[in-house]
Amino acid sequence: MKRIMKQSMKNLKNNVELLEGERLDDLNLKGYQIIQNPKFFCFGMDAVLLSAFTEIKEGDTVLDLGSGNGIIPILLEAKTKGKKFTGLEIQEQNVDMARRSILLNHIEEKVEMHLGDVRKIKEYYTAESFDVVTSNPPYMNAGGGLINLHEAKTIARHEVLCSLEDIIYAASYVLKNKGNFYMVHRPHRLVDIMVLLRKHRLEPKTLQMVHPYMDKEPNMVLIKAVKNAKALLKVSKPLIVYNEKGQYNDEVKELYNE
Amino acid sequence: MKRIMKQSMKNLKNNVELLEGERLDDLNLKGYQIIQNPKFFCFGMDAVLLSAFTEIKEGDTVLDLGSGNGIIPILLEAKTKGKKFTGLEIQEQNVDMARRSILLNHIEEKVEMHLGDVRKIKEYYTAESFDVVTSNPPYMNAGGGLINLHEAKTIARHEVLCSLEDIIYAASYVLKNKGNFYMVHRPHRLVDIMVLLRKHRLEPKTLQMVHPYMDKEPNMVLIKAVKNAKALLKVSKPLIVYNEKGQYNDEVKELYNE
Repeated sequence: MKRIMKQSMKNLKNNVELLEGERLDDLNLKGYQIIQNPKFFCFGMDAVLLSAFTEIKEGDTVLDLGSGNGIIPILLEAKTKGKKFTGLEIQEQNVDMARRSILLNHIEEKVEMHLGDVRKIKEYYTAESFDVVTSNPPYMNAGGGLINLHEAKTIARHEVLCSLEDIIYAASYVLKNKGNFYMVHRPHRLVDIMVLLRKHRLEPKTLQMVHPYMDKEPNMVLIKAVKNAKALLKVSKPLIVYNEKGQYNDEVKELYNE
Repeated sequence: MKRIMKQSMKNLKNNVELLEGERLDDLNLKGYQIIQNPKFFCFGMDAVLLSAFTEIKEGDTVLDLGSGNGIIPILLEAKTKGKKFTGLEIQEQNVDMARRSILLNHIEEKVEMHLGDVRKIKEYYTAESFDVVTSNPPYMNAGGGLINLHEAKTIARHEVLCSLEDIIYAASYVLKNKGNFYMVHRPHRLVDIMVLLRKHRLEPKTLQMVHPYMDKEPNMVLIKAVKNAKALLKVSKPLIVYNEKGQYNDEVKELYNE
């Protein structure tokens, strides 16, 4: 994706302004752009893969838990015929960036960003009110290593403000019966993921491993779970990101609209 | 593996006899052979992959649950420095075949076959008495499809006489603290497997998917779980069985000693 540095910007569309440290990235999709700040949140390949893995039907309502700068709802609005895309995010700077990206792309009627805590999900939304939930949650266990609890990036990466179970509980609470939950996570947490999904009646139905190279261990896992579904998991063929030359494979190129 | 048909056999070693319908297969390993009967039990690639995946240290005691014709204990005895290999099997014909294979290969001091029911594990063995447990359990849910409950092959393939949980419970019961459990199963049961392993304090530590071809979904999964271990799963690079020409890949050829 092409990056357009702040200093080269003269007029942002819709009178949206960039703040100190922010940059504007082109999504190569319907002319959409997104505001990012390396200090707080920049989306990665996991967000792109999750949005490609997520299936949205026409008219679906979608909630993204721990939405960062809104990359998932914005990509899903661009790619699908869903009716409404909502992001819930706890960090004010991220919500603010997301709201300006929404205005910039003129999608404020379909995409909404809410400031809030996944652990207080019941205060914000009615039970069984969404068709689809997505999440790219913090990957790292709260206990792992020395971390700065107040740093914005730490909050996005570590389970400081919400645990994997908080996310899964929230997803199960807001999803309609037979609603779909899509998540990207790390393979080393797969047991926790499966145990917690089943505990909260989100049955894992599809699993896809993502390998950087054909002959390497997977470094991401994509999971689809269905609320109150019967047990039967389909493990898809793996997604391989790079070919032997270190270039994106065709499948991944397509996801980036390159 | 080369098959030696019954009709071509003059003298079996050690005065072991073949019964009606049985055949003798060469294991390409230390001159070992195994008695099989297509009506009751013939080992498949899953057994070969499981025995290669299983790590046995010098002096280990090993129990194989649902041992069929004893292929796993016989292969492990040939390949490792374990002290004692025991197979537990519920079908009398299989136990009988296994015992004759053991005599044939002169390994009766290290390999033993017991006739018994995995569900009655406590009647046969002391708790925490084995270093390693292996199992290639029946793959199919008891409820799935029309099956003949009395047919020998049905018992080997379906969860008629023991469920996945019976196997996992038995493994956990006989394993020492930090002992290792190795299992081969089908990917569509992965959620059940992980939930049940954790429930019975066998924490999944290594998972390897087995794909028939590079671009196909996995059709087997190999799992190592450790009793009372901490949660952290390593997902290995996948094992691909055939190359584009439909020949075994080198890694698999090696397992078959070809």
